[in-house]
Order: sequence, then C-alpha cells, then structure tokens
Amino acid sequence: MPSNTLHDDYPWTSPDLPLVVSAPMMKITMGRLAVSVSANGGIGFLAGGFDLSSLLQNLSEAAEYAKSTNVPLHDGLLPIGVGVQNWGSSLPLLIEALEAHPVAAVWFFAPKHLCDFLDWAKSIRQLTHDRTKIWVQVGTVAEAMEVAKTTKPDVLIVQGSDSGGHGLAQRASLLTLLPEVRDAFDQEGIDIPVLAAGGIMDGRGAAAALALGADGVCLGTRFLACQEAVIAKGYQDEVLRVTDGGTSTVATTIYDVVRGIHGWPQAYIGRGVANRTYLDAVYGGMGDAENVELYNEAIKMGDAGWGPEGRMTAYAGTGIGLAREVLPAGDIVKSVQQEAIQVLQKSASRYDKR
Amino acid sequence: MPSNTLHDDYPWTSPDLPLVVSAPMMKITMGRLAVSVSANGGIGFLAGGFDLSSLLQNLSEAAEYAKSTNVPLHDGLLPIGVGVQNWGSSLPLLIEALEAHPVAAVWFFAPKHLCDFLDWAKSIRQLTHDRTKIWVQVGTVAEAMEVAKTTKPDVLIVQGSDSGGHGLAQRASLLTLLPEVRDAFDQEGIDIPVLAAGGIMDGRGAAAALALGADGVCLGTRFLACQEAVIAKGYQDEVLRVTDGGTSTVATTIYDVVRGIHGWPQAYIGRGVANRTYLDAVYGGMGDAENVELYNEAIKMGDAGWGPEGRMTAYAGTGIGLAREVLPAGDIVKSVQQEAIQVLQKSASRYDKR
Repeated sequence: MPSNTLHDDYPWTSPDLPLVVSAPMMKITMGRLAVSVSANGGIGFLAGGFDLSSLLQNLSEAAEYAKSTNVPLHDGLLPIGVGVQNWGSSLPLLIEALEAHPVAAVWFFAPKHLCDFLDWAKSIRQLTHDRTKIWVQVGTVAEAMEVAKTTKPDVLIVQGSDSGGHGLAQRASLLTLLPEVRDAFDQEGIDIPVLAAGGIMDGRGAAAALALGADGVCLGTRFLACQEAVIAKGYQDEVLRVTDGGTSTVATTIYDVVRGIHGWPQAYIGRGVANRTYLDAVYGGMGDAENVELYNEAIKMGDAGWGPEGRMTAYAGTGIGLAREVLPAGDIVKSVQQEAIQVLQKSASRYDKR
Repeated sequence: MPSNTLHDDYPWTSPDLPLVVSAPMMKITMGRLAVSVSANGGIGFLAGGFDLSSLLQNLSEAAEYAKSTNVPLHDGLLPIGVGVQNWGSSLPLLIEALEAHPVAAVWFFAPKHLCDFLDWAKSIRQLTHDRTKIWVQVGTVAEAMEVAKTTKPDVLIVQGSDSGGHGLAQRASLLTLLPEVRDAFDQEGIDIPVLAAGGIMDGRGAAAALALGADGVCLGTRFLACQEAVIAKGYQDEVLRVTDGGTSTVATTIYDVVRGIHGWPQAYIGRGVANRTYLDAVYGGMGDAENVELYNEAIKMGDAGWGPEGRMTAYAGTGIGLAREVLPAGDIVKSVQQEAIQVLQKSASRYDKR
C-alpha cells in the first residue's frame, strides 16, 4: 500500500483518516475554497482551467487568504494544489505563477497527447526540486498504464463516468475502472497512489471507492454546494434542486459550443444538467448559431438564466441529487471522512459473526 | 435494515454472508447455472427472456437437474428465480410454467409501461399464495419510487450504467444511483430490500455496493465466464480476452437490429463489446440491411464469428476486464462473498486506530 507515502507528502493530512480532495472546477474552486479544504485536513485544488493568464493573481489571493487565516506553508509550499487543463494551458504562465507561489501539487488533465505531460512534469519538478507533486487524471486503464510508465506521476487520479464537467466520452464508472487499474498496477509492480474521482458525494461513495482499491477520493460536484465556491446563485440553486442525475444530467459537447470553448480534445465531453440549450440542440433540431445567440441572451438574465427552462450551463455529475445543502467546505471534508469510516465499520461488523 | 427478511424468504442463503445473485441473461443462464448458484448459497435466475414459449421446458430441465444433484425444494418451490423481459413476454405462458414448477422469485425487467407490472405481480402472487416473490429491476430513482409505490415488489434491483446487455440509455452508475434510491426509500419509509446490479465483478465491487447501501448484489457479466453458462466458446473467449470495458464496450441498439430483435422499449440500449457490426454502423456509414446480411453470414462461422474483427454480439458490461478465468458458478458465489467480507474488514481496520 503506497498510502503512507501519500500522507507524508501532504503532512497536514492524517494517515488515520481517508484522504479527501476537492477537485479543481474551472472558475469555481478558487483560493478560498482550496485553502479551506486543506485547512480542514483535505487537499484543496485551485482551478487554473485552460487559460492560465490570471493564475498568478489567483494564487496570490490564495496565499493572502492562507496568511490571513493562519494556514502555514509546508516546506515552503502553499498547502494546496493547482489544476490545469493541459490542452489549452501555457506552461510558461504556470511556471511564472509557481515561482511566486509554489504549491504542493499540480493536477494535469486532458492534454492534446499524453506525452505532452513529460515536459510539464519535468519543468515543475525542476522548479521546486521535486517538492511540488505531479498528479495526473486519466479515464481508462490504457491511459493509466501509459501515464504510469511515461510521466510517472506522484498520484494518479482515475475519473469514472459519473463525473460532472469534462471527461472522456467513452469510459466506465469507478466500479469497474478502479479495480482494473489497481490490478494492472499490481501486476506491473507500479506503486503510484490511485485516487478516485467521479460520483463520490458523501461517505458512502468514499467508502465504496476505498473498497474498490482507492487510496483516497476526489469530490467535485459536492463542492458546488459549499460556501466557498465561486458560483452564481442560480447555478448553486440548480445543484440543490436537481435529482436523479442519471437522467437529469447529460454528457454532451453542446455546452462548450454555446460557451464558445472550442479547444477540447475530441475524446472529451462535458456532463451537466439537461437544459433548453441541450433539448433544443438534440430534440429540437436547433442549429448552433441560434443556440449561441439564445445563450448569450440568457447570460443577461443573471441567476434566472438557470433552471428547468434555462440556458445557462450547470456542469454537474450524476450525484447531483445527493447535494442537498450548502455547507462550509471544511465541514464537507470532515463529514465525508467520518461517514466513510462509519460506513466501512458498520458494513464490516455486519459479517463479524463469521 | 430489511436484510433479515430477505434471508428469511430464501432460507438456503445465509444472513451471515452477503447475498449474491446471478442475474438472468437470455439463453445463457439456464437451469444448471441457476441451480448451481442456489446450491452454493446464492440465488440463481433462469432467464426467460422475452419469449417464454420454451420456459416450461427449461424449468422442467432445471427441476430435473436440481433433483439429480439433490438440491431440495423449499416450501414447495424450486430454489431459483425466473427472469422475464416484460415488454415481449406472455403472462399466460409464465403462469403455465410456474404451475408446473413454482419458483422462489420472478424478476421483472423492461415493461412497455411500469404499470404493466401490476397484473403480472397479482397473477404470480395468487398462483403461489405469495410464496413466489416479485423482484423488479429499475434504472432511475423515479422508476424506483413509482414501482415501490405501485407494484410494491418484494425486492427492488437497481441497475447501474456499467451493466452488460440491456438497460436504460440514460442512467447513472451504482455509485450515485444506489445511495439516492436508498435515501428516497428511507425518506418515504419504504423498507423494500434493494439489490445492486451493474459493474459488480468480484468481492471489491460487492463490498462497494454494500457500502453504498445495497442489501445484496447481482452479477451478470462475471457469470459469462462460468462453467455452467450456455455460451458459445467464441463468446466466452471474447469475455476473457477483452479489457478496459469503458472503451471496449459500447451501449447501442445496433446489436438488436442485426439480431432481428425489434420490440425493446425506446429507452433501452444494450452494452456489448464493440465489434465490426458496431464500427461499420457508427463510423463506416453502413446501412442496416447490409449489416444484417453480414451478421447472418458471420453466424455460419461459428466461434470464429466473435473476436476483434468479428460480427457476433458479445453482450458484456464495463467490468469485462475483471473476468479472467472460467470457474464453476458456485465458486464465483463463494469467492465474491468471502472477498467482500475481507475487503470490508481490511478497509475498516485501516481506520481502527481512531
């Protein structure tokens, strides 16, 4: 088990508790959320997205917030991570930001080619003398094996099909993907810690991921309903309202189209709440130009642009129905850890008599 | 917890072990497999499919096999279940078969309308004075609630998106679907046992499902690789060969088209290994007529009709990469039970020091 190494690298986390990570979500998980998660024993990620031109500013604000709340540096590093969507990001901008504010980890996702990770990992490792850890998120067993053998990340994140926002169009859920990756690693003697992402909303999902072989869990959608999320009220209300995410969310490229985001590699789609934009495109035969125009009109409506008949995008995973109240990010971390342990102990004790 | 009731209804199962069920798979899970599963402490289901004209004969053979292997009746019932695809099945044929060979449970799936279950449940319950239990498989929280309040089944099976063969095109995996159904039931005071299906291949998946709130687990794809499966060698070899099911399997209707099966309700698709039939239809622009013709030619090839360039359908779930050896069905039941308990106890003990 590589899990002790994992906690050694992030000494503010406890090896006696499941590792809980807040996943980077573009424009939503910024400094306050990331620092709050780490201040409560998790690992918080600030989202860089695909445009890193404001990353230096965002990291400065995160550092400021950490200082103002007495969250210390560890080994000279801000105890949070930064997430980047490699396909559109600038490595020089990342390095510039990390020179000013080195962080504990950088989370790679969605490169044009998997081999692109090599240069990124090398530059970051050189910059902080291997102190900043490289995390890579993948969506298939084949990707996991290739990344493990080439980039050799410090942490591999396996993203299952329930995840919100972007992911591979073709993939399994964590139920089968995670144990198959774990077996492949074991067979090849690869001891990179594996974290689970996609569909984990509470301690039950975390317990399930641990049973499937994960060394820790990453939550995205659950943190849409937290106090520190930088999220429009209309969007957050949608997260609280919507249930039955298997039918109420859809995996599609239409939300990228109306938002004017064109660079995602072809294999990726984004999961969000099915709304008018989607229904008009898929069932109404509406062309992209008209849909874009209507989307741009909807932006002017503010929070009223979301909702059952809305057009504003609410990216979220299939677990959206399990996000029922807005909590402080730190409370989410702690409740997921405690519930996961309770669930495992209760499930195990049921068969103790044997 | 309704789990004790569950074991009371199937007294050859042990309340000290996780309940393991072999899911009905059309033409594959017949009497020998179903009886072997039940003889080893699970609950085996004989698949009726959508055409029940040979069910009486198949049940007679199951009864014969049970007798020859000293598997006793319980309360006058054969200790197995029968699965039916309601959309195409004949209730009179089912009743005729059950009159001759009453069984412990009937598993409903895929009706034209959910309310169709009512007559089916009533007729079966009358026939055996409530001894034959009604199991219903659903794919969304909404379906679970409607069925629970109308049909009031004895067991509800929640089918997640990783499942092989047919299921709803739009649904979540068990990771989010199962806890949301469980919460909805708890909130409404519904105490119907909930079983998990879709993506469970071994004790890790079973442990995960139990942590997510399941009272037991159903395995389909895993039993494709068992000695008692009625399955072509070409198909079974495919199950052993294929890995990385998130990308190597696809959810589609094209396999129904080439097999000449036309009655599935619109919301359903079937997951199977991506093969020439699929690639030609989706990427090659091949019309249905030509694809059907090529499929019918491939049938003549026997086992060679399967494989990477084959055209024969290999329905399977995303967990196909975790089916690595052909075992006796009873050994699968026992290993899933034992591994699930070990996984839960090991996962729980990791946090014992708290």
